[in-house]
Amino acid sequence: MSEENKFTPIKNLGEFALIDRIKLKARDKNKNTIKGIGDDASVINGSKKESIVISTDMLIQGVHFDLMYVPLLHLGYKSVTSNLSDIYAMNAKPEQILVSIAISNKFSVEAIEEIYEGVKKACDFHKVDLVGGDTTSSGTGLVISITAIGRTNPKSLTYRNTAKKGDILMVSGDLGSAYLGLQVLEREKAVFKENPNMQPQLNEHQYILQRQLRPEARKDVVEMLEDMQVIPTAMIDISDGLASEVLHICQQSKVGVIVYEENIPIDPSAVEVACDFNINPTTCAMNGGEDYELLFTINAKDLPKFKNHPHFTSLGEIVSKEKGASLILKGGNSYKIVAQGWNSLLEKD
Amino acid sequence: MSEENKFTPIKNLGEFALIDRIKLKARDKNKNTIKGIGDDASVINGSKKESIVISTDMLIQGVHFDLMYVPLLHLGYKSVTSNLSDIYAMNAKPEQILVSIAISNKFSVEAIEEIYEGVKKACDFHKVDLVGGDTTSSGTGLVISITAIGRTNPKSLTYRNTAKKGDILMVSGDLGSAYLGLQVLEREKAVFKENPNMQPQLNEHQYILQRQLRPEARKDVVEMLEDMQVIPTAMIDISDGLASEVLHICQQSKVGVIVYEENIPIDPSAVEVACDFNINPTTCAMNGGEDYELLFTINAKDLPKFKNHPHFTSLGEIVSKEKGASLILKGGNSYKIVAQGWNSLLEKD
Repeated sequence: MSEENKFTPIKNLGEFALIDRIKLKARDKNKNTIKGIGDDASVINGSKKESIVISTDMLIQGVHFDLMYVPLLHLGYKSVTSNLSDIYAMNAKPEQILVSIAISNKFSVEAIEEIYEGVKKACDFHKVDLVGGDTTSSGTGLVISITAIGRTNPKSLTYRNTAKKGDILMVSGDLGSAYLGLQVLEREKAVFKENPNMQPQLNEHQYILQRQLRPEARKDVVEMLEDMQVIPTAMIDISDGLASEVLHICQQSKVGVIVYEENIPIDPSAVEVACDFNINPTTCAMNGGEDYELLFTINAKDLPKFKNHPHFTSLGEIVSKEKGASLILKGGNSYKIVAQGWNSLLEKD
Repeated sequence: MSEENKFTPIKNLGEFALIDRIKLKARDKNKNTIKGIGDDASVINGSKKESIVISTDMLIQGVHFDLMYVPLLHLGYKSVTSNLSDIYAMNAKPEQILVSIAISNKFSVEAIEEIYEGVKKACDFHKVDLVGGDTTSSGTGLVISITAIGRTNPKSLTYRNTAKKGDILMVSGDLGSAYLGLQVLEREKAVFKENPNMQPQLNEHQYILQRQLRPEARKDVVEMLEDMQVIPTAMIDISDGLASEVLHICQQSKVGVIVYEENIPIDPSAVEVACDFNINPTTCAMNGGEDYELLFTINAKDLPKFKNHPHFTSLGEIVSKEKGASLILKGGNSYKIVAQGWNSLLEKD
C-alpha cells in the first residue's frame, strides 16, 4: 500500500495520541490566544483583569448515552453540567453556553423541548445564559454539542501542567458511583430486554443513579476554594476516572504521584453495589469515570485549611517524575497507575 | 392523546420557529451577555474596547455533506469557513475556533488528519487559532461541530435588527453558484451510480464547484468596509439563500425591502448552468444558499463609496414594514419575497 493510501485504524492510535498529532499542527497566531489545546478549556484574553475560558464537548447517542434509560430532561441537564465541569476545572465561573442539537425527524417537538428544559434547569442552577447554538436534522441518532464560556481572574486560573513536587493531591466529593449507576442501568436494561414485563429495580439505588443520570458540576467547589483563599496549583475534572486524570496532571506537570487507596472516597452505597457486581470499588473509582468531581493539587502549606472538611479528601502527594505514578494499596503493596479510563474512540466499533 | 404525551412532528414547526420557542425560555443572567440567540453570532463583553462574538454550527454527514463527492480536505476547510462567515457577518474578525469531530471507526487516522489539514488551511488563511475541541466515535456518520470566536470594536458590531427605512441593501460577490455547483455534483453522482465506469464531467464547472466545495468566508469584505470607513447598519451572511436572509433582516429590523432582480449579481458561468438545468438563475440566487456572501444595509449617504466597486452590488432599498418585502422582476412585475431556503430540519426524514 502506498504512503498516500495509508490506512491506520483509529484504535491503533487512541484519542489522546490523536489530539497530540493535531496539537502539533496548531500554531497560535493571535495575541489573545493564551492557552490552546491540552487542558480542560482553552483560555483567551478577556477584560484587563479577566481571562475567558472556553470548552466544548460532543455527545453521541449510542456512544455517550442510551435513550433506553436516559430521560431526555436528564440528558439535557447532564450535557450542560459535564461541560461546565471543564470550566470549573479551570477554577473559573461559567457564564454562557451554546447548544447544538442534531435530531432525527422521528423526534417530536416535545422531545426536543424536554432536552432544552433540562438545559434550562442546568443554566438556572449554574447562573449561565444560553446564548446560541444550532438545531439541525440527523440521519440517525441524537447528537448534542455544547460550548461553555467562563471567566476568572488570570491569577486564579488552574492548569493541568503546574503541579509541583511536594504538593498534596486533593479530590472533592466521592468517586466510582457514576460508573456503578451505569452498571445498574445496563443490568436492568438487559433484564427488561429478556422480559419486558419485569419492573426495573431502581429505587434502592437512588444515589448512584443520580450520579450517573444527573451529575452536578462542582460550582460549590470553586466557590469554597475562593472562600478558603486557596488557589490549587493544578486542577482537572474527573470525567474519565481517577487514574486517567491523575496521569494527565503527572504527564503535563512532569511529576509523579503517590495515591493511597485507603484515602479514596467512595460512598457506602457504591461499595455495596460494587460488591453485588463483584467489582473492586477502588477499580470503579480509578477507572469508572463520569464522576465530575474536581481533582487538584495544593501547596502543602494550604493543607490545614482542608482539615476535616466534609467536601474534600487528601488522596496523596506529588513526587518527582522519576518515581512515577503509584497507588499504594490498603495492604501496603504499590501498584503502577495505568490509564484504563473510558475511551470513546476505542470502545465502540 | 393526553397533553403529556403530545407528539408534534418537527416538520410542523421548522427550525426558526423552534429557535423562537427556545429563545423565549432563555433569560440572560450575566452582565457580560450582550446578545443571545437570534443573530449570526452571540456577543459577550471582551476588553474595554472590544466585544467578543461567538458562533457555532454542526454539520452532519448525509444532511450537510455527501462524502461521495466531498473531499475530506475541502470538508474540513468548508466547515471552518462557513462558521467564520457568521463572525464576519457581525463585522468582526475571527481569532479562535474549537473543532469537535465524531467519526466511525471505519475512518482511518489518515482520513481524520485530512479533515484537520483542511481545518488548518482555513485557519492559516483566516489567521485563526485552533484552540480546542473534542474527538469521539460516532455509531454511524461523521459529525463536525465548530465554534468560532471573534472580536470587534463594539461600535463596529453589525446586528440583523438595525436596518432603517431609506437604507440601501448591498451584497458582496455573486449569488447562486454554490447551489448550481451542488446540482452538477448531484447529477454526476447519479450518472456514476448508473454507470461506475463513466468519468465525471466536472472540468468545465470549476467556478461553481469551488463555490460549493470550498467556499471562502468574506474576510476581505470586513477589511474593505473598514478601509472605506463604512459600518453597515445591519449585516447577515448568506447561508440559506438571499430570500431567507433578506427576510431575517426585515423581520428583525421591522422594515420592508425592495430588491431589483436586474441588480442581483450572478456569475455568467452560473447563468449558463442554470439554463442547462432549466432553472431560473434568479431562483438559484434567491433560494439556493451556501454562497457565504455578506448581505448588508448601509446609510444612503455611504452609497457613493461603493460606486463601481468590483466586490459590491446595490440590490435595492429598505422601505417601511407596511410595504413588505418585494422582488421587482426584470419585466417590472412585483413579487412577494417568501423564504424557501434550505431548511435542514425539513428536508430529510
